[in-house]
Amino acid sequence: MCRWMAWLGQPVLVDELLFKTQHGIVDQSLHSRMGAEPTNGDGFGLGWYGGGDGPALYHSVSPAWSDANLRELASHIESPLFFAHVRAAIGSPVQQTNCHPFRHRDWLFVHNGYLGGFHAVRRDLMLAIDADRFADVQGSTDTEVVFHLALTFGLQDDPIGALERTVGFIEATAERHGVPDAVQASFGVSDGSTLWAVRYATAGSARSLFASADVEAIKRLHPDNPRLQRLSPNDRLIVSEPFSDLPGLWHEVGEGSAVTVRRGGELEHQPFRSRQAAPAL
Amino acid sequence: MCRWMAWLGQPVLVDELLFKTQHGIVDQSLHSRMGAEPTNGDGFGLGWYGGGDGPALYHSVSPAWSDANLRELASHIESPLFFAHVRAAIGSPVQQTNCHPFRHRDWLFVHNGYLGGFHAVRRDLMLAIDADRFADVQGSTDTEVVFHLALTFGLQDDPIGALERTVGFIEATAERHGVPDAVQASFGVSDGSTLWAVRYATAGSARSLFASADVEAIKRLHPDNPRLQRLSPNDRLIVSEPFSDLPGLWHEVGEGSAVTVRRGGELEHQPFRSRQAAPAL
Amino acid sequence: MCRWMAWLGQPVLVDELLFKTQHGIVDQSLHSRMGAEPTNGDGFGLGWYGGGDGPALYHSVSPAWSDANLRELASHIESPLFFAHVRAAIGSPVQQTNCHPFRHRDWLFVHNGYLGGFHAVRRDLMLAIDADRFADVQGSTDTEVVFHLALTFGLQDDPIGALERTVGFIEATAERHGVPDAVQASFGVSDGSTLWAVRYATAGSARSLFASADVEAIKRLHPDNPRLQRLSPNDRLIVSEPFSDLPGLWHEVGEGSAVTVRRGGELEHQPFRSRQAAPAL
Amino acid sequence: MCRWMAWLGQPVLVDELLFKTQHGIVDQSLHSRMGAEPTNGDGFGLGWYGGGDGPALYHSVSPAWSDANLRELASHIESPLFFAHVRAAIGSPVQQTNCHPFRHRDWLFVHNGYLGGFHAVRRDLMLAIDADRFADVQGSTDTEVVFHLALTFGLQDDPIGALERTVGFIEATAERHGVPDAVQASFGVSDGSTLWAVRYATAGSARSLFASADVEAIKRLHPDNPRLQRLSPNDRLIVSEPFSDLPGLWHEVGEGSAVTVRRGGELEHQPFRSRQAAPAL
Repeated sequence: MCRWMAWLGQPVLVDELLFKTQHGIVDQSLHSRMGAEPTNGDGFGLGWYGGGDGPALYHSVSPAWSDANLRELASHIESPLFFAHVRAAIGSPVQQTNCHPFRHRDWLFVHNGYLGGFHAVRRDLMLAIDADRFADVQGSTDTEVVFHLALTFGLQDDPIGALERTVGFIEATAERHGVPDAVQASFGVSDGSTLWAVRYATAGSARSLFASADVEAIKRLHPDNPRLQRLSPNDRLIVSEPFSDLPGLWHEVGEGSAVTVRRGGELEHQPFRSRQAAPAL
Repeated sequence: MCRWMAWLGQPVLVDELLFKTQHGIVDQSLHSRMGAEPTNGDGFGLGWYGGGDGPALYHSVSPAWSDANLRELASHIESPLFFAHVRAAIGSPVQQTNCHPFRHRDWLFVHNGYLGGFHAVRRDLMLAIDADRFADVQGSTDTEVVFHLALTFGLQDDPIGALERTVGFIEATAERHGVPDAVQASFGVSDGSTLWAVRYATAGSARSLFASADVEAIKRLHPDNPRLQRLSPNDRLIVSEPFSDLPGLWHEVGEGSAVTVRRGGELEHQPFRSRQAAPAL
Repeated sequence: MCRWMAWLGQPVLVDELLFKTQHGIVDQSLHSRMGAEPTNGDGFGLGWYGGGDGPALYHSVSPAWSDANLRELASHIESPLFFAHVRAAIGSPVQQTNCHPFRHRDWLFVHNGYLGGFHAVRRDLMLAIDADRFADVQGSTDTEVVFHLALTFGLQDDPIGALERTVGFIEATAERHGVPDAVQASFGVSDGSTLWAVRYATAGSARSLFASADVEAIKRLHPDNPRLQRLSPNDRLIVSEPFSDLPGLWHEVGEGSAVTVRRGGELEHQPFRSRQAAPAL
Repeated sequence: MCRWMAWLGQPVLVDELLFKTQHGIVDQSLHSRMGAEPTNGDGFGLGWYGGGDGPALYHSVSPAWSDANLRELASHIESPLFFAHVRAAIGSPVQQTNCHPFRHRDWLFVHNGYLGGFHAVRRDLMLAIDADRFADVQGSTDTEVVFHLALTFGLQDDPIGALERTVGFIEATAERHGVPDAVQASFGVSDGSTLWAVRYATAGSARSLFASADVEAIKRLHPDNPRLQRLSPNDRLIVSEPFSDLPGLWHEVGEGSAVTVRRGGELEHQPFRSRQAAPAL
């Protein structure tokens, strides 16, 4: 049901975190341990900042583990801020327009989870999207609808608040349709300089989510791990599942909470609550 | 801007009409003569009746001319009724969910042309689709929206009438948005036993469309053409562009008109007029 | 490391054995239990007899579980004899020319396993292929080389004998290169009327392989299983892994043995031994 | 039958030359004017130096005109030296391993043209490839065989000389098989700092090839063309077909000649003659 990761820190070759890490996101595409399914083989997406105007996207319908272009890009593209996402489609078509990250101008958005009863609520949710933006929805995923709702609810001004209102609106809509598990999610968002991540479920346990800890103490504990030694206090990782070769680095993001990572590595936690609001149409 | 063909008649290997004909639909994917563009290389679709329940679909994002699977299927699948469609995407993504024919239960639908100002009218058109059917729209083409509108307007009871109401509704919507060329189209529809085809444009000349003539007189004129000799009075072809090795066989379908082909080869012409109507919600 | 199945018997919708069976081949693409890897997501192939001239192929680079076209074909194509194969690529590219079954005229060939040290032996093996056939090798798999070697060694006259000579030749070649595990394999072959299957490994345990048992006794044991009741004495299945909803139906094919299935359901077992022979050039 | 371009000069966004130029290589994929066919829609390749170790490749089976990832990469990747190639397959499969550029360590190689009678000569040519390199041939194109032959004949030490020996060897082989038009080609090669290009045909006229002229005189002639004004004396383009918005910039590379472009924009011409030589095995 998808796995994702995000990096904000010193510029690194994407490769370093995609293929050179043990149990990195590409390995998770084949052998996820904490996901709803072990296999996330229904396409892949990479979104990165750096070079040219705005973020770049690479979307592929191939599984991440077998995509030759992904290995090429990862080993030649350097970025201080990027998302990688492996998809498990649960029913919707495997096509590039259904691959994460989704983009609007400078903003990127990824999601692990689902909207309950999406077939039932899709129309009502799409009607709530800013009418000017409606025709921008190109694929058929719940995530793209969430993203455009969030933009409608003010994502670009107040990312966490807009997502709280989006989740509240989806829950109210789902309730009208008798759907109990409206939102199951970890979300990742960025505008190119700050990174936000949310962990939330309307019902039951939310999808797993981890942030990397402050690295200084960890470097002292593991003086012989060259990969940990390379990390600086400015670097932060947000991941659906810990990489196994960076032990001790991971703090679980609590259920119903959000984190904000700013340049310099600063990490803030805050509660995340669904909020009822009408879209600002 | 797309080319399509339809066959209703004796069961034939699809190959016979796709690859063995001169200037057949696959050749038209590379060298269209009467289309808006010579190249129709943005995916392909085949929809056929025969074997299993309901019609089968093969949708490919490869150009028809290079798709090895298409050659395999064409030379091994026999059908008394099928559509083939080559696509020129004009902006929308090349993905299987954007390939024609579109299907609902026993019904298949193809389109050559476009909706003017689709980005502007998409939301209003989608809102007019039967709410229960809204979430079935999987791709991002104008054609899929037209098809679901037509189903909403009664396609399954009165195909030509429903398309007249659909076109009327689209034209009224476009007018509200200041779009002059609402509908440019040839449409093909079938329920598995009858075949309907429409040629219509709101403004200017409509996409080319041809129906095969009664074959007896033609067989007498061309006694040495083995492909013409194989045709029976029960066989009808509807095509965007004539095949060049069946000379004399083609009658142009008039602008603003519709044809109905029934089993036995019967061909009826009727005028096609846009009709203003509210959707039967 | 691949899984495959073959059917010889009454004409059935491919669907019946691909998607409607519990733990059928498509499920094995995602959750193989007896394979070297649980995931066989690196492409898929279907080869069937019936309709048109010779066998038809459908090769896809998508995982079998997410290929919409495969579901369409499976539910509309009926065949008395077909192969399905899901691939785990172990290094070679995921491309249609690397998908099984491979075909030469009326012959189809599938393989589960690998040639040890293929990079080292590939040149010597390809040089032993009949020179006229060399340029027919289109992909980069070991299996395609095995197939063309087997054709060179007389597959069309004596399938089991030719495979014994092929395996012997590969083992001798591997030995010259210091490769200990020359051949690891289950093979499936057909000419359109008879089906042959081989289970063999140069070293260690060979890939799993099962044949369906005589069905009369089993029908008496499970009078309430409708899927078993539909089987006739003329029907045989050969599978890498048993389907779980047809309990008791399966006999393991012994290591170092071959089976021959003829029309009428007759099943013969024989030993399979590698034989040293020079190619008949 | 393919079109390609190469850039050596100041670092530029690939986009600038791929999409922003009139009648650039992507437009040539749809509307080639000087090629053997107007459509070059059978896959695409981009190979660039800059970032990470060695050159990077992006190979796609989609036509260049519809590949969303290509637009993303082109508008975000900057490079001082890159190749772009659009393919017309003439029979061989459309797969990533058949896309140009081909790569060996730091070397990239592209080709427009064909080997005459390739099916007949393929085996003899592949046997002449350095045995250690034989298993590296992953696809089924003539070009990949030419590249590995050229490596065998010393490409890395003497690019033009090695290509002359390669062409001579292919011609001798073709002659033995009674093939008159052994080589039809423009070739492009680079090691990451120098760029070589060859125009040659065994028989008849060779594929078109152009090099950009010294820019100072041209800038004075066209003071109002902003794209020309941006060029510096250090920049060189080699193209199959001129871009139409840079008039006067192009010098045809003569038939049977080669050019060498070094950093700093220096351009050397020399004759290119096929030379008979045995491979240095």
